[in-house]
Amino acid sequence: MTKPTQQNEKTLKEIAELVKGTLEGDPQKIIKGVNSLEAATPDEISFFSNPRYLEKAKNSKAGAILVRDKSGLEGKNLIIVEDPYLAICILLDEFYPLTKRFEGISSLAFVHPYASIGEGVSILPFSYIGKNTKIGENTFIASHVYIGDEVEIGKECVIYPMVSIYSNCSIGDRCIIHSGVVIGSDGFGFAWDKNRYRKLNHIGKVVIEEDVEIGSNTTIDRATFGETRIGKGTKIDNLVQIGHNVKIGKNCAIVAQVGISGSTEIGNNVIIGGQVGIVGHIKIEDDVKIGAKSGVHRDLKRGEIVSGIPVLPHKEWLKLNLIFQRLLMKDKW
Amino acid sequence: MTKPTQQNEKTLKEIAELVKGTLEGDPQKIIKGVNSLEAATPDEISFFSNPRYLEKAKNSKAGAILVRDKSGLEGKNLIIVEDPYLAICILLDEFYPLTKRFEGISSLAFVHPYASIGEGVSILPFSYIGKNTKIGENTFIASHVYIGDEVEIGKECVIYPMVSIYSNCSIGDRCIIHSGVVIGSDGFGFAWDKNRYRKLNHIGKVVIEEDVEIGSNTTIDRATFGETRIGKGTKIDNLVQIGHNVKIGKNCAIVAQVGISGSTEIGNNVIIGGQVGIVGHIKIEDDVKIGAKSGVHRDLKRGEIVSGIPVLPHKEWLKLNLIFQRLLMKDKW
Amino acid sequence: MTKPTQQNEKTLKEIAELVKGTLEGDPQKIIKGVNSLEAATPDEISFFSNPRYLEKAKNSKAGAILVRDKSGLEGKNLIIVEDPYLAICILLDEFYPLTKRFEGISSLAFVHPYASIGEGVSILPFSYIGKNTKIGENTFIASHVYIGDEVEIGKECVIYPMVSIYSNCSIGDRCIIHSGVVIGSDGFGFAWDKNRYRKLNHIGKVVIEEDVEIGSNTTIDRATFGETRIGKGTKIDNLVQIGHNVKIGKNCAIVAQVGISGSTEIGNNVIIGGQVGIVGHIKIEDDVKIGAKSGVHRDLKRGEIVSGIPVLPHKEWLKLNLIFQRLLMKDKW
Repeated sequence: MTKPTQQNEKTLKEIAELVKGTLEGDPQKIIKGVNSLEAATPDEISFFSNPRYLEKAKNSKAGAILVRDKSGLEGKNLIIVEDPYLAICILLDEFYPLTKRFEGISSLAFVHPYASIGEGVSILPFSYIGKNTKIGENTFIASHVYIGDEVEIGKECVIYPMVSIYSNCSIGDRCIIHSGVVIGSDGFGFAWDKNRYRKLNHIGKVVIEEDVEIGSNTTIDRATFGETRIGKGTKIDNLVQIGHNVKIGKNCAIVAQVGISGSTEIGNNVIIGGQVGIVGHIKIEDDVKIGAKSGVHRDLKRGEIVSGIPVLPHKEWLKLNLIFQRLLMKDKW
Repeated sequence: MTKPTQQNEKTLKEIAELVKGTLEGDPQKIIKGVNSLEAATPDEISFFSNPRYLEKAKNSKAGAILVRDKSGLEGKNLIIVEDPYLAICILLDEFYPLTKRFEGISSLAFVHPYASIGEGVSILPFSYIGKNTKIGENTFIASHVYIGDEVEIGKECVIYPMVSIYSNCSIGDRCIIHSGVVIGSDGFGFAWDKNRYRKLNHIGKVVIEEDVEIGSNTTIDRATFGETRIGKGTKIDNLVQIGHNVKIGKNCAIVAQVGISGSTEIGNNVIIGGQVGIVGHIKIEDDVKIGAKSGVHRDLKRGEIVSGIPVLPHKEWLKLNLIFQRLLMKDKW
Repeated sequence: MTKPTQQNEKTLKEIAELVKGTLEGDPQKIIKGVNSLEAATPDEISFFSNPRYLEKAKNSKAGAILVRDKSGLEGKNLIIVEDPYLAICILLDEFYPLTKRFEGISSLAFVHPYASIGEGVSILPFSYIGKNTKIGENTFIASHVYIGDEVEIGKECVIYPMVSIYSNCSIGDRCIIHSGVVIGSDGFGFAWDKNRYRKLNHIGKVVIEEDVEIGSNTTIDRATFGETRIGKGTKIDNLVQIGHNVKIGKNCAIVAQVGISGSTEIGNNVIIGGQVGIVGHIKIEDDVKIGAKSGVHRDLKRGEIVSGIPVLPHKEWLKLNLIFQRLLMKDKW
């Protein structure tokens, strides 16, 4: 995988159609790439959505800017769209298409004779594919990847270096797994036996559904029995810990350094802020939002928005912080 | 290491004897495996210990259930034991014995000619064993393992892929080290020298005693001088950080994403919840329990139970949260 | 890289000159090494700076002690210096010079024919160097390192096993990168597109300036566009997460398990305690200090010292904890 390089140029008229936006400015202006407000040249397009950056937008040399509304930026070439971030996402794909280099199977890789490798699969040097493991077509396996025995990997996945996938796990189509991820290590389960911890032999597995992306150095433990499961389209950031038998639904976003303890169930479209900790054996329903650094000790109902350690409804948590401010101001010492 | 497969079948009478329990039900009933309450079939045994799961236990199709007492589950085949979790642990070993596959030393591994490799050792492709390093008998070293120079590894260890053990460290018998663990990287020690940080050359090492298990992507730094030490039987979860010169006693349990700063000393049988942070240079005595997400800034005496940032006695922390609730309720805005 | 071994001996007179200290004691006494207060022998020198360890200093068998002042330790060989920690740092370099073993380029490594490798570079078995990548002279690359295409690595770096450096990133001279570090993985950027997350193609890179040290299993994401940048001389501990487009200044110290969200800018000489979380898109000015476990949700001005979730001025945070103590004491339940 190399950094994609710019391959297209388009007029603002073409771009406005592509992102379903309204152009205010010169339809014939040619755009050759995408960049940040500060760095964009008059050949490039940028986007403005965070109000913090209004001054940067005003001073930008960008040839055009994707905006939600034009206030404060009159006179520039603007394309008005509902979601500038989505629009820039579409343009990044358009101007810098990611081309997965087909490299075939390196003679420096170890592929078990009983592994089954689909067409168009690349396996780079020093990667290891175990016995009875299946790799779906057009999947790209970088160098230094370990895939154990009896694993199933879907089609069109990208697996970066230093990824470890223990035996018996399965990964859906189009997943992206970044460096250092560990999938299927044993859960943290020990029974106290007189005077020592005795290890629970973990006989379950991990199932990752389609279109999941997993950030660097994240760890996902195998189930004691049954499975640990990550739902379709869920995105997980770096250094996240997911315990044994956790179930996560579809289209969740889990920010860096979150920890989810064993057997907890999480619904669909849940958003979990960075460094949140969640105890085991609880249930978090669909559409919940959990503020960064929170500690979740109880079930959360559909659509709840919570913050704090332990979590409170987000509005109460804000109010509690104001109460603390008043206590500080009143204090006479 | 492959997932263990079921190899035995037993009557409930035999199982009751094995786990030292009292059978209520059919002694001749044959059991072929172990599973969760939801997934168990009439051929399988399950366990019930968390009261949250009473409904699941009632509705379970399991052929028998290990329980602490029979209330609510009358009529099912039950085995009454003191600790159902320990009983299931024993049965997992019995039904699914973990068979370490002997694979010998791969011709694709690098083993220094001056390394000393015990009998029955497996070293898989792309692993590196340094100069003067000793590997004890029957230890299993997966692929992509780095073991530096002058390291000692005990007998019957299992070292998973992508583990890094820096030079001069030592690991006791029967340790299990999961993927991505780093043992012996330099501590975070820098002296301020006029206008820049100057690195302290770390000349110490890490000593891991027997029967320690270390979870994926955990990092344990080498001592500045002397040693960082993890005591016998201690279990460490994923993504834990252990600083230089930390000493941890025997049979501790350290949950995921804990951070322990340099030179702190921890006694025996200490339990540390997930995402706890502990400052450097303090002493935590035997049998202490630290609630998840706490921040420990002071010494803790034998048997203390604490929570909060900074830590309070656990009961005071609970009370403080109730006081916050009242402040919220009283507030008139 | 092996542990440095003692190679010198010096008189206390020579040592006092080296560390610019005042000797109280025998100038001809010979010292052969450096050790902790507890473990030092009469042939070794130690240091005393944390007042917690006064009893250890009194009972130490060390042949001499580096101290800030002599009170309580009269009668021992003492060298009085402004900063005993810096003095011991200087002596560690003197007694245990780190000798980087030149090993050349292993025939078991993969080096792309279009990579450019400087003189004196070592590349150990199972390392991978990509196309058009440049490695500066005398850099040491351990085993199992992945360096993608079009990467630039400076001179005299040390890169430990299992490090992943994605394509197009650059690393300055004399950097030290510990095992399991990931540099240049994609930022956590997804746009919501009707009913699913759509990945932002990340076309930026990571730039690490000179003299940076990065601890084990830390992750640094590439920029969406432009660069993520770590300033000269900054030191980063283990398991730290640095988001896309973050800019960190010079000579910062970032303790273990910190998380810094996307696009945040941090000045020079900033100190960030362990497990701190910092939201995205904020600005933290020079000389700020952030207490361990804090949650930073707002800009911080030059020299601010803050603690808490969310952060308060450190003194207010201390006061707030005292107010909580009083609330607990007053409470009648």
